[in-house]
Amino acid sequence: MINVSLIGSTGYAGIELVRLLIAHPEVNIAHLVSHSHAGEPISHVYPNLKGICEKICTSLDIDAITADSDVVFTSLPHGASDDIVQVLHERGIKVIDLSGDFRYTDISTYEKWYGRTHNSPHLSNMAVYGLPELYRDDIKNASIVANPGCYTTCSILPLAPLVAHNLIDTKSIIIDAKSGATGAGKTPSQPLHFCELDENMRAYKIATHRHTSEIEEKLSLIADKDITLSFTPHILPIKRGIFCTIYANLNDKYNADFIYDIYNKFYADEPFIYIYNNEETLPELKFVNGSNHCHIGFVIDKRLNRIIIVSVLDNLIKGAGGQAIQNMNIMFEIKETTGLDGPAWYL
Amino acid sequence: MINVSLIGSTGYAGIELVRLLIAHPEVNIAHLVSHSHAGEPISHVYPNLKGICEKICTSLDIDAITADSDVVFTSLPHGASDDIVQVLHERGIKVIDLSGDFRYTDISTYEKWYGRTHNSPHLSNMAVYGLPELYRDDIKNASIVANPGCYTTCSILPLAPLVAHNLIDTKSIIIDAKSGATGAGKTPSQPLHFCELDENMRAYKIATHRHTSEIEEKLSLIADKDITLSFTPHILPIKRGIFCTIYANLNDKYNADFIYDIYNKFYADEPFIYIYNNEETLPELKFVNGSNHCHIGFVIDKRLNRIIIVSVLDNLIKGAGGQAIQNMNIMFEIKETTGLDGPAWYL
Amino acid sequence: MINVSLIGSTGYAGIELVRLLIAHPEVNIAHLVSHSHAGEPISHVYPNLKGICEKICTSLDIDAITADSDVVFTSLPHGASDDIVQVLHERGIKVIDLSGDFRYTDISTYEKWYGRTHNSPHLSNMAVYGLPELYRDDIKNASIVANPGCYTTCSILPLAPLVAHNLIDTKSIIIDAKSGATGAGKTPSQPLHFCELDENMRAYKIATHRHTSEIEEKLSLIADKDITLSFTPHILPIKRGIFCTIYANLNDKYNADFIYDIYNKFYADEPFIYIYNNEETLPELKFVNGSNHCHIGFVIDKRLNRIIIVSVLDNLIKGAGGQAIQNMNIMFEIKETTGLDGPAWYL
Amino acid sequence: MINVSLIGSTGYAGIELVRLLIAHPEVNIAHLVSHSHAGEPISHVYPNLKGICEKICTSLDIDAITADSDVVFTSLPHGASDDIVQVLHERGIKVIDLSGDFRYTDISTYEKWYGRTHNSPHLSNMAVYGLPELYRDDIKNASIVANPGCYTTCSILPLAPLVAHNLIDTKSIIIDAKSGATGAGKTPSQPLHFCELDENMRAYKIATHRHTSEIEEKLSLIADKDITLSFTPHILPIKRGIFCTIYANLNDKYNADFIYDIYNKFYADEPFIYIYNNEETLPELKFVNGSNHCHIGFVIDKRLNRIIIVSVLDNLIKGAGGQAIQNMNIMFEIKETTGLDGPAWYL
Repeated sequence: MINVSLIGSTGYAGIELVRLLIAHPEVNIAHLVSHSHAGEPISHVYPNLKGICEKICTSLDIDAITADSDVVFTSLPHGASDDIVQVLHERGIKVIDLSGDFRYTDISTYEKWYGRTHNSPHLSNMAVYGLPELYRDDIKNASIVANPGCYTTCSILPLAPLVAHNLIDTKSIIIDAKSGATGAGKTPSQPLHFCELDENMRAYKIATHRHTSEIEEKLSLIADKDITLSFTPHILPIKRGIFCTIYANLNDKYNADFIYDIYNKFYADEPFIYIYNNEETLPELKFVNGSNHCHIGFVIDKRLNRIIIVSVLDNLIKGAGGQAIQNMNIMFEIKETTGLDGPAWYL
Repeated sequence: MINVSLIGSTGYAGIELVRLLIAHPEVNIAHLVSHSHAGEPISHVYPNLKGICEKICTSLDIDAITADSDVVFTSLPHGASDDIVQVLHERGIKVIDLSGDFRYTDISTYEKWYGRTHNSPHLSNMAVYGLPELYRDDIKNASIVANPGCYTTCSILPLAPLVAHNLIDTKSIIIDAKSGATGAGKTPSQPLHFCELDENMRAYKIATHRHTSEIEEKLSLIADKDITLSFTPHILPIKRGIFCTIYANLNDKYNADFIYDIYNKFYADEPFIYIYNNEETLPELKFVNGSNHCHIGFVIDKRLNRIIIVSVLDNLIKGAGGQAIQNMNIMFEIKETTGLDGPAWYL
Repeated sequence: MINVSLIGSTGYAGIELVRLLIAHPEVNIAHLVSHSHAGEPISHVYPNLKGICEKICTSLDIDAITADSDVVFTSLPHGASDDIVQVLHERGIKVIDLSGDFRYTDISTYEKWYGRTHNSPHLSNMAVYGLPELYRDDIKNASIVANPGCYTTCSILPLAPLVAHNLIDTKSIIIDAKSGATGAGKTPSQPLHFCELDENMRAYKIATHRHTSEIEEKLSLIADKDITLSFTPHILPIKRGIFCTIYANLNDKYNADFIYDIYNKFYADEPFIYIYNNEETLPELKFVNGSNHCHIGFVIDKRLNRIIIVSVLDNLIKGAGGQAIQNMNIMFEIKETTGLDGPAWYL
Repeated sequence: MINVSLIGSTGYAGIELVRLLIAHPEVNIAHLVSHSHAGEPISHVYPNLKGICEKICTSLDIDAITADSDVVFTSLPHGASDDIVQVLHERGIKVIDLSGDFRYTDISTYEKWYGRTHNSPHLSNMAVYGLPELYRDDIKNASIVANPGCYTTCSILPLAPLVAHNLIDTKSIIIDAKSGATGAGKTPSQPLHFCELDENMRAYKIATHRHTSEIEEKLSLIADKDITLSFTPHILPIKRGIFCTIYANLNDKYNADFIYDIYNKFYADEPFIYIYNNEETLPELKFVNGSNHCHIGFVIDKRLNRIIIVSVLDNLIKGAGGQAIQNMNIMFEIKETTGLDGPAWYL
């Protein structure tokens, strides 16, 4: 059994991770740290756990965590992760961090887009970007994994093969992203008030969202040239799911079969990636919500010689806690799909 | 033109009243008082008013309101209305109050259920309960109208004819009420956070909701005997609408046609009440949302000799601002349906 | 491994059963019978299964099913089950039937409420009502299990202890039930068209819904006297969940602790039942949706000496496929919670 | 009073037009033609009209319509409009057609994208494209107005000023459009079944949607050069509203104030267009749903020298029936905002 602790257990990403870990056959939950609910049973905060997990949330106690944990998941706001990960790392604990703090190869990009000075750039440099489909071998031996977020995973996975094979004009990439409201977190606010979002949708942080820089950096590393792109996040009146509609001009007149082969070879044997061929319907949120899967479909617009891609995943699973468990499975050399093999709910 | 001012313009009941008043052909809006948004254009708080109503919200200025207003709508929390209505009344201004403060005939019932001492019981005694279908004549000459709320209107209207004609066992009345989330107001909170309410529903304040006492008092006055009843409010993952399912044992073996006739005679010529006959579908929220109408349908369960009633209305219109305008129209002797004659949206 | 086949795999109850069976560690799926999609991969009909279950749906082939199956789940309309269950039973196959056809002790009640003559009343008599919390011992040895539906499970579980202990006036029982739209099935129709149900709700089949008779029969057997009651179903603009608000007059002045003890003793050690004590919040759909759990809370209205109960469950799981698997686990003597131990989704 | 008739009264566009016409102070409804509901009161099909409009739907009777109508709205599928408009025109009746049949300047484009031969190209040539903000003067004297649809109105209005002033690279235009489900009409189908769309979203007809060609033709006429562009429609789990996110590369380094001025001058005095300046929030669906308004906001991404525009409108009003009434008002020389001056609902 892998002994795991969570820091930041009662936010939406945290509690989804708890839910998935409860069902993981090789995991023992050691500590559930929650600043805001220390002393309360987790099942009091989330009554879906009544009779299932009655563990008491605790305050942060590094000694206790160190003593009992093989790995710690940190699900904290950026900035807050920075220092705690450093402490845990010094104690020799493996960390899977769900914040943006350790995701960047170039610290200056991080500091520019996040507007803060990083306290442990040496650790950021040694952290591995936890996208298993691209960095599985590095993840195996990582001591710090920087778990990518929902928007970035749903953007990088469909674009990586095209960029790697130099099939698209990298100046023309536009990612129109739509997210369920869980992506905005648990804290009540006017824009997330039920009556303000229901039957509505909105765009936000156009041209300035931090994940733009993360997507750009990872794709640039793959392409071996600087890529800048448009990333427009929207919030939908639903709970779960990321839906990306991605546009790029093709470098040549590729047909759909050719692109389909590229994708299938790039993601051959990947258990969580499914590529739609040309004759199928396009991916929808209900095909992935509740699962760790990412579905990718596309259309070639021959008139404009442009590819339009639709990619979908569950922001709380493949875009957060599920991917974190996938990384843990790799790090602890158990079957990568353990605890993650259920299909999406559809209903 | 009737010069009207609103105190409490930027809550959900307030802004819906603003929206309806803008479309009212005989109204001039004098002041929009908003404690939280004084100095801001109302269209900044509610961008649906951009280019339509750019009035600036103001702080409460009794002199200005007195000078410019024929009638004031107070859309404030209970307790807050109590004192302001008193001041406005002393200045000779007609008031339509949307809070619970002036709705009770018996002040002690109010004080018990609201847990506060009333500051102006003499005014409460002279205030008229603003349910036009029952108290139209009194409303005509009222200087203070206590506008009933959504749950009470949707409960009293279908029960009044049955109680008035002594057709039901008044000990057996059960009102199972379901409300859209606008009824819970604009202030963000965990239970009203989008992801907490979406795809969910909940019951609350079972056996203790204040409107229980208001419904009981009004029905007791009609029946001329003490009525107590069960009232269970639920919140639905939708914005608008009250849906009441009401149960009562019949005092004798009445058939559906008899009951239908009772209703139709009781509400003959009422412009906003529609009774469904036995062969029709039952009322649904989409048949009334967006309108000032209340639809009432029923089934006689002959096996159990029990009537089951379904009543629906828009909590923000017939259950708040629309009814307030209906009262204003009566007070100022203009056609009662003025500004309120649009059908429900359906879509 | 238990070899299972499904007849009626592509309706909503069927596909949810498929989803749960895929994750069941001791099950091998032999045949997925679907009249409407025979010859198609199930993952073509439900793309959430792409890459997970690519089994081809088949036409009904009794010989093939007999050869390969230890148990068959029949998820068919009532009437259609009647004959097929008979054939399967003659072949010596255990059957778990999700229709209403085998649920009644008194065939004449079935025939009256369903408006058809039963073709195999002898089998109906030997079938066991598959509510494990009440009939676990009989289920162990059953060859035909009649799996109760969503409304009935959510109604009987909270009422059984009160009726068994004679705590309530059985003439006063009112069940106001609200259901997610999956309960109405997969077939498109005007009332289930997205724009007709979204932001709406409706009541239907008041005083005439078939499940009324099933609830009455089972409670009458427990009480050992005839019980009739009001059951009012409503459809909500959400996908999953049954929410019952239940009213009954108490036979004496019981306090909440007493009732809480009654419930807890009645359901002691039940893995899927959770009783809320008096100081907790009430059950909500999001506390059970996605799980096989039923949560029960209640309020004693001392003023009226009436109990108001809130019970919730997931109509597709504890109200259909999950309960069917629970029954299978009991019949095959494996741990009752196998494949059903995940918590509700909450989000 | 203007005597109007509708052909196709009981589809979603039709009934919304009925709802708006009922509230129009200068309109008398002569005939409500409905093939599927002839002989039924419209209030039976749409119970929101109970007690408000009890008119009986009729079969198509050209003589009766000719005798009683000053103008006819045809809300029919494309192809069906073609012939009926011809007949009405020959009788000398003004027609406002909501289908695609008369919208194209170049009939061959219509025939290619709609896959049918036009029966009355001479009428199509004389029909005026009913976008008042661009073609008001022509509409005044039109006998046939081709009312633009929701996607096209929401796409053309924000792009016209930029194209007219040659501010954007017309090869780079991408329109990512999201629509409420009423846009897909009233007919039940699997993809529009409540449980299939709720908490979901999907893209459809990528690169092949007919409205692509309509947007291209109108913008090409404004630009006086051929424009081709990407248009991607999505369906959202909400009832109303079009939300377009539009991308285009700027031809020079324009700042936001410059663009804001361009928009404001282009749409000066337009009663239904509102341009958001740089410091405001972006448009949201709830700011326009229920109204005839179109709100336009934008962000200049200086890094990429690209403009990202957000435009929103109510698909059933400014995208269908409201725009049709706006056209009627112009044709009959009454105030253009008559019957259309209400603000959006917000809630």
